[in-house]
Amino acid sequence: MASVAMFRSTRSCKNYWFRGRWNWMWRRKYESCFSTVACAIKSNDSNSKVTRVLFCGPYFPAPTRYITEYLRDYPFIEVDEVGLEHVPEVIQNYHICVVKNRRIDLDIIAKATQMKIIMQYGVGLEGVDVNAATEHKIKVARIPGSMTGNAVSCAEMAIYLTLGVLRKQKLMDAAVHQKDLGSPTGETILGKTVLILGFGAIGVEIAKRLKPFGVKILAAKRNWSPGSLPCDVDGLVDKKGGPEDMYELAGEADIIITCLLQTNETVGIVDDMFLSAMKKGSCLVNIARGGLLDYKAVFDHLESGHLGGLGIDVAWTEPFDPEDPILKFSNVIITPHVAGVTEYSFRTMAKVVGDVALQLHSGETFTGIEFVN
Amino acid sequence: MASVAMFRSTRSCKNYWFRGRWNWMWRRKYESCFSTVACAIKSNDSNSKVTRVLFCGPYFPAPTRYITEYLRDYPFIEVDEVGLEHVPEVIQNYHICVVKNRRIDLDIIAKATQMKIIMQYGVGLEGVDVNAATEHKIKVARIPGSMTGNAVSCAEMAIYLTLGVLRKQKLMDAAVHQKDLGSPTGETILGKTVLILGFGAIGVEIAKRLKPFGVKILAAKRNWSPGSLPCDVDGLVDKKGGPEDMYELAGEADIIITCLLQTNETVGIVDDMFLSAMKKGSCLVNIARGGLLDYKAVFDHLESGHLGGLGIDVAWTEPFDPEDPILKFSNVIITPHVAGVTEYSFRTMAKVVGDVALQLHSGETFTGIEFVN
Repeated sequence: MASVAMFRSTRSCKNYWFRGRWNWMWRRKYESCFSTVACAIKSNDSNSKVTRVLFCGPYFPAPTRYITEYLRDYPFIEVDEVGLEHVPEVIQNYHICVVKNRRIDLDIIAKATQMKIIMQYGVGLEGVDVNAATEHKIKVARIPGSMTGNAVSCAEMAIYLTLGVLRKQKLMDAAVHQKDLGSPTGETILGKTVLILGFGAIGVEIAKRLKPFGVKILAAKRNWSPGSLPCDVDGLVDKKGGPEDMYELAGEADIIITCLLQTNETVGIVDDMFLSAMKKGSCLVNIARGGLLDYKAVFDHLESGHLGGLGIDVAWTEPFDPEDPILKFSNVIITPHVAGVTEYSFRTMAKVVGDVALQLHSGETFTGIEFVN
Repeated sequence: MASVAMFRSTRSCKNYWFRGRWNWMWRRKYESCFSTVACAIKSNDSNSKVTRVLFCGPYFPAPTRYITEYLRDYPFIEVDEVGLEHVPEVIQNYHICVVKNRRIDLDIIAKATQMKIIMQYGVGLEGVDVNAATEHKIKVARIPGSMTGNAVSCAEMAIYLTLGVLRKQKLMDAAVHQKDLGSPTGETILGKTVLILGFGAIGVEIAKRLKPFGVKILAAKRNWSPGSLPCDVDGLVDKKGGPEDMYELAGEADIIITCLLQTNETVGIVDDMFLSAMKKGSCLVNIARGGLLDYKAVFDHLESGHLGGLGIDVAWTEPFDPEDPILKFSNVIITPHVAGVTEYSFRTMAKVVGDVALQLHSGETFTGIEFVN
């Protein structure tokens, strides 16, 4: 069972461990005892046969549980979850770090003296200072979404949010509570033009699923060379464009779904100019990263009524303030960054991380991950 | 403009009219004045060139607005909406009655001395006592869903509810409010087996859209002869069955979507025996009619945890009590009977009703409707 070796060696303070599925609960209960935990990890350093995997908590609790289950028959792999604020105290004891949605910067990476691989539980790598990792000879890897169900999960969520916006989820809830019936009048996906902004693995999965709804698919992508596409997209995309066509495409769409990686180039890409280019009353769905949208521009276009609806799984700060004024608009819906958070996707990714830990332990070739440095 | 003739002839009491888009608001405001309205209708009887269409209110407010817009250039067609409780007072003045979701029984039909056609704004006809209408030589018609966008709208709603149940909509909302992140862990549609119970126009539209999500489609239907199917379903349905196979199919499915008409045979079809045949943890979605589900059986199976989730657009009584205990389960979501209520579907159906009114007025052949008596 994962963590067993460490658990045995620290039996006297076992309650202080942030292990497996109980980590999150224990973290809340025993946060003040953390220095004892750090000390206990150090005392275990002599066991050179243990490979240690660190998950940075506390958000996204499910992965630790799944990987602990996956590795239950391998006592030489330890999996722990530690709240990010305590990571600097313990990171020197771990060989693999999974950052989830929190940022690991140079000052933390510098302390990771035994670290071999830093990974994100997904595709995006904004949680890792890659240059700092490279400087410290630590490999950084992502888990490509097309292989893990992450892209499929995100695509399904994009369709859920699209339907939620078109059917006016908040007004439907209000109608139920007011004992109204047959109201509000929603919109169908049928007949709409959908622009997928960023046409990678997620975008393709969205297009495959939306096509039979009776839509016209527009897609914007930097590079349309066959090698950069996950599959043949002929028959799937009605109109292709590059970044230079973005505003023109936006003007034709009823629904825009952002599926871009967040980079220096894409931060704030949905700004006042982009929103102004959109059709009046059209809707926006974001299942990628909150920073792609310029908050003020989106707020202003909701207020003016130019933007007809907004469905977001990701926000500008996370967790997002549930009292933020942007959530007060009746045509705005939000979910708690769970687009990729499905049993299927998380179990598949747990297998990837578990296999990487086993491969690191035995010196085998890594599978299922993509190194970026 | 529809209603103009009547409007002009009753100018002195125009504020009492329940016309077009303002009907619902006016109904609330002027309900006590209704006897004046009824009197005004009678005074207009001399104008034999007016064809009058009565919508029974107050729920489902949008159709009256759409048909009034559609008929705005035909002053000889009048469209009014009247709360059901006042329908007996005025029904003798109308030639077409659209019942929406309220029941028109023998005692009301007996008063409809000028009535030619009673219709429902959709496919279901549980709002009409067909035998009573036949007895009084009134034709009863439905609007087939495959021609109006109603089936498509309902199919999209079924997918919205399926995703809402699988992604645990209520827990997502709670997570947002508790500032939690990356939780709950949902389920994908990918990999699931879906049973469509009742494979008519809506069922086919659901299957077409769900297939690319990566599902296995099972379908139960009384009659699989090619003539009874809206299209070729080969390649769409992985396993077909009749009513006798229902329990076996239920045992294979992860998600069951009920798309049956409600008849004496189908009322309560999802009962304790059916629910017990379902896989533990599987989900149920109902976008057809509330009475298809046995309330107590569904409640009990939610309570025991055998039923993993419930998404309903229709309920046992409507409007449904928002405080009903069945809505307290965290895995139950409800929408206010809006599966077919979309701009596209309602505008298309308004055209059908409008055309029927014009055809009745001019003695032409009816189009877009299906008589059942």
